[in-house]
Amino acid sequence: MEIISDPQDMRGRARQWRGLGLKVVLAPTMGFFHRGHVSLMEYGKTIGDRLVVSLFVNPAQFGPQEDLGRYPRDLDRDVRLAREVGVDCLYTPEAKAMYPPGYQTFVAVESLSQGLCGASRPGHFRGVATVVLKLLNQVSPQVAVFGEKDYQQLMVVKRMAADLDVPIKIVGRPIVREPDGLAMSSRNTYLTPEERAAALCLYRALVAARELVASGARSRENILAAVRQIINAAPGARIDYAALVDPATLQDVEAIRGEARLLLAVWVNKTRLIDNTLLSESRLCCV
Amino acid sequence: MEIISDPQDMRGRARQWRGLGLKVVLAPTMGFFHRGHVSLMEYGKTIGDRLVVSLFVNPAQFGPQEDLGRYPRDLDRDVRLAREVGVDCLYTPEAKAMYPPGYQTFVAVESLSQGLCGASRPGHFRGVATVVLKLLNQVSPQVAVFGEKDYQQLMVVKRMAADLDVPIKIVGRPIVREPDGLAMSSRNTYLTPEERAAALCLYRALVAARELVASGARSRENILAAVRQIINAAPGARIDYAALVDPATLQDVEAIRGEARLLLAVWVNKTRLIDNTLLSESRLCCV
Repeated sequence: MEIISDPQDMRGRARQWRGLGLKVVLAPTMGFFHRGHVSLMEYGKTIGDRLVVSLFVNPAQFGPQEDLGRYPRDLDRDVRLAREVGVDCLYTPEAKAMYPPGYQTFVAVESLSQGLCGASRPGHFRGVATVVLKLLNQVSPQVAVFGEKDYQQLMVVKRMAADLDVPIKIVGRPIVREPDGLAMSSRNTYLTPEERAAALCLYRALVAARELVASGARSRENILAAVRQIINAAPGARIDYAALVDPATLQDVEAIRGEARLLLAVWVNKTRLIDNTLLSESRLCCV
Repeated sequence: MEIISDPQDMRGRARQWRGLGLKVVLAPTMGFFHRGHVSLMEYGKTIGDRLVVSLFVNPAQFGPQEDLGRYPRDLDRDVRLAREVGVDCLYTPEAKAMYPPGYQTFVAVESLSQGLCGASRPGHFRGVATVVLKLLNQVSPQVAVFGEKDYQQLMVVKRMAADLDVPIKIVGRPIVREPDGLAMSSRNTYLTPEERAAALCLYRALVAARELVASGARSRENILAAVRQIINAAPGARIDYAALVDPATLQDVEAIRGEARLLLAVWVNKTRLIDNTLLSESRLCCV
């Protein structure tokens, strides 16, 4: 596995691959790999000739009061894991190479970025859209893969790529969970054992919502009431948002017609966790 | 000459050229070609294998009170001219293809867009940066050429491409003028004969500034005083801005050290004209 830090070197390697007619896949990450990342990588390997995993804790997507400084990092372990999975290139640019002095260009996806995580994290999706576009331009992959846990992010990135005519396919991959249902997240490492137990309330709320829908519930009011009750019962849990939205536009829906997405953001003491699931009238789908 | 309107067709043709190893050059325009455009095209032909001229009057760069509706258009004449120059492809996308329903992504180059034309035309450079990035992604040229008359635009586009890692070279080309010095502009067509005469004040002010510098003047105060005097003496002329700036950052300079750029925007009755020149301590350069 090749490790590249310099954007110019990355671009050179990408150009070389393109010249050879190879299909390049990119999985953008912030590192501190867990099984969610590994699942993205394993999938990425099956669909292309070269898999690049970028590892960049992007300052532009963290607010001034957020956890940029303490975001978990373990490059040695990440290198080992990526190598084991068979990643071809781990791309680890430095912040000063991504945002050199005088840097001033930002990409905003307006409507999709406004509510949900965008409401509690102003500027977050601007930072995400900007860095993803930069990575796409540096690596020029034919496909980029993202996890569905960050569902709003996935929609923002898809929209950005479509709106700006970036010649790429953006693919979302299912959430990977711990055996007890907690969605894999690098931020789980912040949780104490008590908080880790409380954090299960997100998964429990999603499962309850799915069961409600399976038993015929359709209205936003009923579904969100059940969700809120479950989360509020967990010690230290505080709902940032619980939303039932159209899967494409992320606009609130009053009732499930066809498909809707249930999106959750919950503070467990000082750690903010997100999770989501598809709710479908017509078919069973796993959380 | 091929005329392509559909972005998918344009992308397909560009992909084909790239596959053949051809060097593609793009000259983005809003049409109503004059000798300034022709000079961009002629230059573009000398530096690549295929020259694409895009013709798109971009709604996103016009403010609600601006001249989008009456911006001059003459497609038949433009087609004839482009064919005469030897353009390979005239790309004429429609607004509804560039900004389909649900479109919501915009690119902002922050500091460079703020003063000068950005101050009088809020959102203008956001629209410019966005459409240029879209065109670059659709046509994927190795080089894109822009006129220096829109000097701030050129700097914004260069910065955008560099910041977002777009693999392209952005080239600025000298202003082309009428025999009496008026900078070529599609908006010159708005001028009555009296206004056309008054509009010469921009060129006269630039020439006077250059002569002042040649005779030893360096201070912003002296240079702009002379410029203002000349423009204010022209009937119907009203200065929007007259600025002496660093050529790269577009920040005001107090005096010329090395090189500065003199930038003008002047209303002649209801028509807003811009022009600019390099002012250099050390070498003579033509306006």
